[in-house]
Amino acid sequence: MPQLQIYSETLVVSMERGPHVFNITSVLNDMLQRLEVETGLLSLFVLGSTGSVTTIEYEPGAVEDLRRAINSLADPRSSYEHEKAWHDGNGHSHVQAALLGPSVSVPIQRGRLLTGTWQQIVLINHDVRPRERRVEVTVVGTGCAD
Amino acid sequence: MPQLQIYSETLVVSMERGPHVFNITSVLNDMLQRLEVETGLLSLFVLGSTGSVTTIEYEPGAVEDLRRAINSLADPRSSYEHEKAWHDGNGHSHVQAALLGPSVSVPIQRGRLLTGTWQQIVLINHDVRPRERRVEVTVVGTGCAD
Amino acid sequence: MPQLQIYSETLVVSMERGPHVFNITSVLNDMLQRLEVETGLLSLFVLGSTGSVTTIEYEPGAVEDLRRAINSLADPRSSYEHEKAWHDGNGHSHVQAALLGPSVSVPIQRGRLLTGTWQQIVLINHDVRPRERRVEVTVVGTGCAD
Repeated sequence: MPQLQIYSETLVVSMERGPHVFNITSVLNDMLQRLEVETGLLSLFVLGSTGSVTTIEYEPGAVEDLRRAINSLADPRSSYEHEKAWHDGNGHSHVQAALLGPSVSVPIQRGRLLTGTWQQIVLINHDVRPRERRVEVTVVGTGCAD
Repeated sequence: MPQLQIYSETLVVSMERGPHVFNITSVLNDMLQRLEVETGLLSLFVLGSTGSVTTIEYEPGAVEDLRRAINSLADPRSSYEHEKAWHDGNGHSHVQAALLGPSVSVPIQRGRLLTGTWQQIVLINHDVRPRERRVEVTVVGTGCAD
Repeated sequence: MPQLQIYSETLVVSMERGPHVFNITSVLNDMLQRLEVETGLLSLFVLGSTGSVTTIEYEPGAVEDLRRAINSLADPRSSYEHEKAWHDGNGHSHVQAALLGPSVSVPIQRGRLLTGTWQQIVLINHDVRPRERRVEVTVVGTGCAD
């Protein structure tokens, strides 16, 4: 029986002002190939309280629909208590990110993420300025060498 | 010390047009019994970008309330950019599923999912047509035999 | 190569009527220190269908903004089907908790949770009464002793 291993890597993504939705599926698959993990579970956690992660069909229409829905959850034009203390204009960003959530776990099979045909893993920047967003990737699995 | 194992199985569920909320708790508990896993963590990932997973008290009233709230997050009667390219009528389905998220992780104790007394694991189909939805179940845990 | 271990503990938190947002980051870090886990993944699962977990910058303004957004997702003053059968006044609580979700997974590095500088792990009680909320904490990782 192959022994389970744990691997962790940090992914850094240059993102535009929010809501910016970015497809990280192929970067994650490249990472799995490099780590030589065959079977397991990949967990993503966005560092910072104005980022989130989910899945969507990554085509321009659906991405634009998601951006609009995110801005309906917490409208950038509304007033926020966070602003009264911090004046950094991103009160809505914090609320949006908390509602979407910081983590997703995706199965790995035959060395690749197992997702639906049109389903992609996306990182979202909700902040009002471009950011280098960091995502911590934790893989629990068994490798080719086992 | 028992050695950690990883198991994966695909669950296929026949679902009605969305939002359809379906209780998969007992199917998952049956799976755990068959796998003889005693302690661990079970991760669910819905394949496809118009499905999601969460927990709720599975009684008709709460389920109907959740269905309405889901349709308020992204109204089927609104217009969507996704439609302009694809004309498949499920622009809202993609948005709903992305907001709820594709994955949940549930602890396993004494060979069963550890949930609250009234808390059930539910699979949701957001698509506008009935679908055979696939859920990938990944279990990391130790078994009875250890 | 250190062998992966699994640990589980139940966290019990006295919470006020919802939406009450409570910072559990330092309690979780204390738990990791006690378990002597150095590297791994910590998964949280809220027991009960009127609780949820996410991350946010835990300062009074952002927390108040999140509370308001949660009450916009499912307004306590609206009518709910759940009420017609149960009359316990928490129809909105079930919907809110299902939309936010019961689980989050956070990476562990150097014996501590790896989060953003201002990012905290929060437990949310959505119920209409104070509750002793239980959170099941599952850790998969390698320890100092390995």
